[in-house]
Amino acid sequence: MYGNGYYIKFTGKGINKMALMNDNFNNLVANYLFAEIAKRVNDYTKAHPEADVIRLGIGDVTLPLAPAVIEAMHKGVDELANKETFKGYPDYDGYEFLRKAIADYYKTKNNVDISPNEVFVSDGAKSDCGNIVDIFDKDNTVLVTDPVYPVYVDTNIISGRKILYADSTEENGFAAMPNKSIKADLIYLCSPNNPTGSAYTKEQLSEWIKYAKGQNAIILYDAAYEAFITEDDIPCSIYEVEGAKECAIEFCSLSKTAGFTGTRCGYTIIPKELKMKNKSDEDVSVYDTWYRRQATKFNGVSYPVQCGAAAVFSEEGQKQIKENLSYYQENAKIIANALDELGIYYTGGKNSPYIWLKCPNNMGSWEFFDKLLNEANVVGTPGAGFGKNGEGYFRLTAFGDREKTKEAVERIKRLKF
Amino acid sequence: MYGNGYYIKFTGKGINKMALMNDNFNNLVANYLFAEIAKRVNDYTKAHPEADVIRLGIGDVTLPLAPAVIEAMHKGVDELANKETFKGYPDYDGYEFLRKAIADYYKTKNNVDISPNEVFVSDGAKSDCGNIVDIFDKDNTVLVTDPVYPVYVDTNIISGRKILYADSTEENGFAAMPNKSIKADLIYLCSPNNPTGSAYTKEQLSEWIKYAKGQNAIILYDAAYEAFITEDDIPCSIYEVEGAKECAIEFCSLSKTAGFTGTRCGYTIIPKELKMKNKSDEDVSVYDTWYRRQATKFNGVSYPVQCGAAAVFSEEGQKQIKENLSYYQENAKIIANALDELGIYYTGGKNSPYIWLKCPNNMGSWEFFDKLLNEANVVGTPGAGFGKNGEGYFRLTAFGDREKTKEAVERIKRLKF
Repeated sequence: MYGNGYYIKFTGKGINKMALMNDNFNNLVANYLFAEIAKRVNDYTKAHPEADVIRLGIGDVTLPLAPAVIEAMHKGVDELANKETFKGYPDYDGYEFLRKAIADYYKTKNNVDISPNEVFVSDGAKSDCGNIVDIFDKDNTVLVTDPVYPVYVDTNIISGRKILYADSTEENGFAAMPNKSIKADLIYLCSPNNPTGSAYTKEQLSEWIKYAKGQNAIILYDAAYEAFITEDDIPCSIYEVEGAKECAIEFCSLSKTAGFTGTRCGYTIIPKELKMKNKSDEDVSVYDTWYRRQATKFNGVSYPVQCGAAAVFSEEGQKQIKENLSYYQENAKIIANALDELGIYYTGGKNSPYIWLKCPNNMGSWEFFDKLLNEANVVGTPGAGFGKNGEGYFRLTAFGDREKTKEAVERIKRLKF
Repeated sequence: MYGNGYYIKFTGKGINKMALMNDNFNNLVANYLFAEIAKRVNDYTKAHPEADVIRLGIGDVTLPLAPAVIEAMHKGVDELANKETFKGYPDYDGYEFLRKAIADYYKTKNNVDISPNEVFVSDGAKSDCGNIVDIFDKDNTVLVTDPVYPVYVDTNIISGRKILYADSTEENGFAAMPNKSIKADLIYLCSPNNPTGSAYTKEQLSEWIKYAKGQNAIILYDAAYEAFITEDDIPCSIYEVEGAKECAIEFCSLSKTAGFTGTRCGYTIIPKELKMKNKSDEDVSVYDTWYRRQATKFNGVSYPVQCGAAAVFSEEGQKQIKENLSYYQENAKIIANALDELGIYYTGGKNSPYIWLKCPNNMGSWEFFDKLLNEANVVGTPGAGFGKNGEGYFRLTAFGDREKTKEAVERIKRLKF
């Protein structure tokens, strides 16, 4: 019934062979970055227990959930307490009330027509960005921009794909553009970008879309930071750009939009018209294949979490989350202004909670990390941890406390470079 | 930094090739089972709108969450409402308070020593059972018992592995035992079994462990229904059996234990001593590899859900969930007693919420489905949907309402076979 089982032939030592690991894991770089940061900070605070260390390194939010979200989650929990309102298995793609709220958000905010039946609700954009590789052939070639969010790279190393890199550098404002001589099948774009804070304009995305369509590639578009966009010519969704529905999947998350890092909810949009080829050169629906993947390996998102997520998209919820977003945006501005004063090159800071700065005096990423930690007691993230083009750069985040952010900035200004 | 990118060589039509799908998806059997059931029920109720159809088909719970769980979830939500108690990204493997609660549960209930650092908390056993295949080589051979929970088969079809079947039949009480002439690397066992309700004794599991160790295979042990076990010689965990820690991963879920199908929480135990080989024939830690997989493709479980899950393992929580379990167990007994009266062969019913019965008069699974639907207005699940050995058998579940279960049983008793 479920595929044709057959007996394996044994030759020589095959008989005593052991369950084998997926050896692609050995090609992963050990995740030294955050471990190394933690170690250095730990060593420093041990040696200087009195130091008031301010952490602007990690991309995690600090403000509480919006009241409308809290209320909706409580209501969801209460429904699970009564037989009449109890909820069992959720739909694989999420409750319709949430998928509809997301589709309405796209219409209202971005003037983009998405059907609730093109939305998949999940436990986070990272899960979807990671798991999406299941539906693609392992011989597809992957293109990522460098510096890069490691999940795009590591998930494809695990599944054994070739990876090409498009350089994000000072020359292009840390927003890599396509090079037509490079051929790829799957293209990861993140805008506003983690870690560089750069955001693609409509025109730039249009160029990526033309490039993708020219070679029948699929764009995997990570819009996790879209809520930080303030400028008009920066699309919040790739579907604001013509042609995107025929070549792009969009991932988004409530983690940064609404402080859901600990609550866990994201969503993925797959337009029904998006196709990929099977090996017989026939068009196959990407939506249908992902649905089958999710139905096989996933069982939907917790009901109270979906209730809270839907509240984010209510009128009240939108008003409340915007207050939190403004708080982080103001933090970003405080950091950016200080760098302006110091004459330090950076990208991000607007349209993004990340500030990606050039280490002064051509310092290396880790050298600058140590200087900042030792002399200003401020923790950031060395750019070198995000790829070869990150060396000599450094990421600060706007997710901290206002007073601490101000204090960190004053300390940085007092540094001698 | 993240693997060596290189340019792909193009030959002929390669230049215009499109993103290719993972063609293994084409080897999946379309999931007709529940869709076909829904269609037939729908057709029937349309034609007979007055009919009082009782559904004993789907394996979803119906009783509300325990009060201790509700209280803990509310408390967790409230913590997200305040800056001082707000929670950001959870640990990839779950909060320590929950991992410790699970380890204590194993000690108290099963007298099994598990470290909290051998526990991974997830959004459900289905996700873990499905995603675990990422860490294994695609050339491993998989052994499943037939009838089988489709997730074990489908996830391995998607990743292109060979699948062998061990027959569960009336002769072995629908609890397949190992055949030493068959070699496999990964062995899926589910006990108490979905769909057959059979449960392995300690002695039987010991035989499986010997078989697995004899060929250095890993057992993937699904204990999702362990809370339904009442008999002493049926282990609730495979780790109750000697040698299991060196050869088995255990998956478990709160879905059936505590009514978490809509709340979403499960866990996976990977003993630190469990090893697999890499291609250089070196031992590799299964725990470390799975940790890396989860860190790459998963971001942990919602905080309020983890709070609720921990409450399941509290003294109060255990008392409360046992009331619900007793309710379902009594339903199972009601169904089993009726089959005893009718002289119909079945497995399960004790140690399991499933009753797997032989269709009377050698009816086929779907033939019996139609008879039950049309003549008794009772919906069950045709065994044929679970593999070739399921043809001629039928699954009923104990998760329904008591009065409706009684009524369904009375209707079945009145049927003429």
